[in-house]
Amino acid sequence: MEYLEQLGQRAAEAKYALQRLATEDKNRALAAAAAALVRQTERILAANGRDYQTAREGGMSEALLDRLKLTPERIEAMAEGLRQIAALPDPVGEVIEHFDRPNGLHIDKVRVPMGVIGIIYEARPNVTADAFGLCFKTGNAVILKGGRDAACSNEAITETIREALASEKIPVDAVQLITDNDRAVTTAFMKMKRYVDLLIPRGGAGLIQAVMENSTIPVIETGTGNCHIYVDEDADLDKAVPIILNAKTQRIGVCNACESLLVHEKIAEIFLPALGAALREKQVQMRGDETVQRLIPGAVAATEEDYGTEYLDYIISMKTVRSVEEAIEHINRYNTKHSDAILTENGEHAERFLQGVDSACVYVNASTRFTDGFEFGFGAEIGISTQKLHARGPMGLRELTTYKYLIRGSGQIRA
Amino acid sequence: MEYLEQLGQRAAEAKYALQRLATEDKNRALAAAAAALVRQTERILAANGRDYQTAREGGMSEALLDRLKLTPERIEAMAEGLRQIAALPDPVGEVIEHFDRPNGLHIDKVRVPMGVIGIIYEARPNVTADAFGLCFKTGNAVILKGGRDAACSNEAITETIREALASEKIPVDAVQLITDNDRAVTTAFMKMKRYVDLLIPRGGAGLIQAVMENSTIPVIETGTGNCHIYVDEDADLDKAVPIILNAKTQRIGVCNACESLLVHEKIAEIFLPALGAALREKQVQMRGDETVQRLIPGAVAATEEDYGTEYLDYIISMKTVRSVEEAIEHINRYNTKHSDAILTENGEHAERFLQGVDSACVYVNASTRFTDGFEFGFGAEIGISTQKLHARGPMGLRELTTYKYLIRGSGQIRA
Repeated sequence: MEYLEQLGQRAAEAKYALQRLATEDKNRALAAAAAALVRQTERILAANGRDYQTAREGGMSEALLDRLKLTPERIEAMAEGLRQIAALPDPVGEVIEHFDRPNGLHIDKVRVPMGVIGIIYEARPNVTADAFGLCFKTGNAVILKGGRDAACSNEAITETIREALASEKIPVDAVQLITDNDRAVTTAFMKMKRYVDLLIPRGGAGLIQAVMENSTIPVIETGTGNCHIYVDEDADLDKAVPIILNAKTQRIGVCNACESLLVHEKIAEIFLPALGAALREKQVQMRGDETVQRLIPGAVAATEEDYGTEYLDYIISMKTVRSVEEAIEHINRYNTKHSDAILTENGEHAERFLQGVDSACVYVNASTRFTDGFEFGFGAEIGISTQKLHARGPMGLRELTTYKYLIRGSGQIRA
Repeated sequence: MEYLEQLGQRAAEAKYALQRLATEDKNRALAAAAAALVRQTERILAANGRDYQTAREGGMSEALLDRLKLTPERIEAMAEGLRQIAALPDPVGEVIEHFDRPNGLHIDKVRVPMGVIGIIYEARPNVTADAFGLCFKTGNAVILKGGRDAACSNEAITETIREALASEKIPVDAVQLITDNDRAVTTAFMKMKRYVDLLIPRGGAGLIQAVMENSTIPVIETGTGNCHIYVDEDADLDKAVPIILNAKTQRIGVCNACESLLVHEKIAEIFLPALGAALREKQVQMRGDETVQRLIPGAVAATEEDYGTEYLDYIISMKTVRSVEEAIEHINRYNTKHSDAILTENGEHAERFLQGVDSACVYVNASTRFTDGFEFGFGAEIGISTQKLHARGPMGLRELTTYKYLIRGSGQIRA
């Protein structure tokens, strides 16, 4: 693919300049990009209007149309995102470790940019600015492949940022957008190992699955969250209902929302009727085992498939269990290694759960909705990693870097 | 594949017990496995003899036969490897970071085992014991796929270790060996994402390439080393020859050996003849540009392909360059991101090289042969990562772990 090859070469050329940029130059460029986005609001809205119209005519759902739509406020939010990234500390150059060897070698383990990062994402055009900002601050060149539905919006945003970079004498190929929306191009992009150091898919389970299966570039798997809350026999039930409502209904379509609930059988009789009433009030459909169906009017039977489903909808699966061990086993079988919580006042149960559950984030007495770069204090987020390599959980700026060893000697040879 | 499914399930069951093991129990089991290897020397040698005979009859080269062959000394070395791993600190459970959030959430970032690690390797049977030891110490279950040529040896070693684990009441499925040597089984193993958290190939470029292309499990790319030494115009030439001889010839077939040499044109006239004589004495064939050919009798022309080749042989490619920048550019174009060195007394040139070269390990005035877990002081090594995700350069025990976030709250919900 001649087209991709050119993009790759331009990114490769840009990356060496980018990794040498001083922090203040990067921050200045981020501020310039933010100002340009606001200044070019009309142009971006016009491009977005074309996408919106095409999508509406094509029968896109209201929920997706809302994700696609830009407004002056949403553009200002993109700009504010870039300003916030500028304000964060620059991780590049940090000496992570230092060791002096007996033979006189001095070894520094130093944080450096990845090089070139690829991001494949779906409908939200704000990811364009966001991904640029995070990659740029960490000294990486980024190649973006956005959803076809947001093609005009993404192009307008990318061009606006590139113009701002040019005005600041920064290599414009710090950010490139793949504008050929042929599926074969996307598949070829996933195999551009020669140019791309890291690939991050952002979107639904289908997209992530396709990238995991086709990419030869190292991938960070993000976002799928079949998150559980286990209500222990020793839970404080007054805390439990608000936490569950928050985790399930505060925002329905997000990866850290709760999708499945486990309840210790000893408290089922007193807890489930109250919880059922609260969830019903929020229009949540409940699917559970026999005990759940007996104690919650309107609850229907859960299938095996339900327990493995990330609904992203007003549906929750429910099950009663006999012990914290059974809860841990069930969770490790069905979860997506994202976020799971125990509600308990029993410290020993809490510790067993924390240790036993195989997830990026394991909670005691708090909503799973806190799995988020901002809530963790990272100041930014490129996604939530559900794999175990490199980075796990919320990924901030540091997670977009790697390290190298710098070894200073005075003529050492190996014996 | 029913067979692999069973292996996967057994590993999944074992991993939860393994991650809860106390350090002293792990160390005791490692000592027991070491003792068992020594005690069962006869049995292992008999199995190895069968492999050796088959391989020799099949026409295996002397070099590969030597890798395959076990002796009482080599078995003792395997046992000693396990004892050394027992003596190393246990990384599991380390609190890497802690942060208290304004809303009262306490977040611990804690080092934990990966879970299940897959290792695919070639002829050396000692990798069997080695990989078990490293994975076990870090609380991981390991599934091994060794080379067909060492099938009997690997099986004897694995069985010996499993018997030792059983005698110590440790789940024997801490280590499992894939004994079906059909290629389709290996390919299916690379796609066992449901059970295997991390896959590490150890072997030649062909094996690593095949794993990178076929695996759906996150992979650590290891081992290919097209390592460069750049002799700067300000090099101390008395240091240069011994470093180059060490890096090229101290051990020919290893990934951190030097394969390509760059020399600043200003010192070519005085340096190349002396270097050429020293390399010729070591039987190293030199392939270079016109200047190299003019100054070194017997040097032949290097092709484009030579500059990209990891010879693992008594051959070196050579090129004159006009500046440290040209050296950096050449290296970043042809290297495998493993180890590259500059020889210079000019501090500014050294810093430009350290920053500019995109490799796991960048050296000033030392042999590339130091890229090694033991030489770095890690006490052990599973391989040298040449990719940028998760771990770069020598991988010790810590690199076989991941982390998770443990979040302790008191009823927090997200606003």
